[in-house]
Amino acid sequence: MEPADARGVARRSGRRPGNPGTREAVLAAARAAFAERGFDGATIRAIATAAGVDPALVHHYFGNKDKLFLAAVEAPEDPAEFLPEVLAGGNDRLGENVVRMLLKVWDGPARPAALALVRSAVVNEWTAKLLREFLVSQILRRVVGTLGLPAAEREARGSMAASQLIGLVMTRYVLKVEPLASASPESLVAAIGPTVQRYLTGDVDLPAQQKR
Amino acid sequence: MEPADARGVARRSGRRPGNPGTREAVLAAARAAFAERGFDGATIRAIATAAGVDPALVHHYFGNKDKLFLAAVEAPEDPAEFLPEVLAGGNDRLGENVVRMLLKVWDGPARPAALALVRSAVVNEWTAKLLREFLVSQILRRVVGTLGLPAAEREARGSMAASQLIGLVMTRYVLKVEPLASASPESLVAAIGPTVQRYLTGDVDLPAQQKR
Repeated sequence: MEPADARGVARRSGRRPGNPGTREAVLAAARAAFAERGFDGATIRAIATAAGVDPALVHHYFGNKDKLFLAAVEAPEDPAEFLPEVLAGGNDRLGENVVRMLLKVWDGPARPAALALVRSAVVNEWTAKLLREFLVSQILRRVVGTLGLPAAEREARGSMAASQLIGLVMTRYVLKVEPLASASPESLVAAIGPTVQRYLTGDVDLPAQQKR
Repeated sequence: MEPADARGVARRSGRRPGNPGTREAVLAAARAAFAERGFDGATIRAIATAAGVDPALVHHYFGNKDKLFLAAVEAPEDPAEFLPEVLAGGNDRLGENVVRMLLKVWDGPARPAALALVRSAVVNEWTAKLLREFLVSQILRRVVGTLGLPAAEREARGSMAASQLIGLVMTRYVLKVEPLASASPESLVAAIGPTVQRYLTGDVDLPAQQKR
């Protein structure tokens, strides 16, 4: 992680780490890998190889795979930082706390960058895959993961919660449908929190595959 | 509505109705008017004036304001055609029937055009206004309008239902989050219908303005 390491890396890979193109090359390789293989399937080793650098340099620049992913999708915020606050109220308040946090981020300075990410995902299949991976690996998995559910149920509940949360973003910030667009955050937490709570922990019919 | 009318119109306006540019000029003027003034604020008279044609010609080409609007936004389907089926189950089945109809349209041949409309709305502020007007004037108003609610409640409930329905479209067809993306329509009706039902007719805290 120190300059000596980075120099060693550079010697081996033939790329100079000080080259401003190196960071961009890693990010480009990361975007391709995460979009093609998903967050779980992509490895720092393969990304480094594709970028022509040593894996240690990727760690040096970006830390872990989560951080590399956040940099690759240009995420305006790191969801991991908000998670303790979302989880602090316990399982019974998860729905309202997720909605509250979503509105806090979107009503804050990150909105333009978040909006840019959503816009890009809607027009670009590749960015759509990245945004989906972001939602699944950085947000839903962490929130739903605290509930101790079997994997299939975890994913079904997560995708339903995602449908309401993404819809809230679209209705309030993209299409601006009133009165939801200018409603107070707390009134939306009260209106929409129970839906997310039901999807996460309530008695719901889980979405099932077409052919079983 | 007959050729004689159209010729009279053409003489007055100085535009020949047979000119293929005329229809496009009306549609362009309609898009601008609906985006700027909304569905209710836009008039066929003003749209005709902006396009340099007689209002009778607009009626001749497009029928009523609803039809002109659908042509202007390039709506793949006319929601009015599906409405009887959605409403047939009565107020208590409105939620599930709206979800069922949404999935039927999106899982059918209209999907590419519907997707193009959503994509355009997300990147273009102007198309976003048109899609919002489409949702509000062509779908929500008609569905929620059957419930006999006061205007403020009608809009609040409509916008909440919109948030779940748009979110379902985004999660299933744009971001393709599994298992929701490949779930059977009926399992989604069962999972998400109750949410839409609650927003339309249930006991919910209605979203309220920021400053009261």
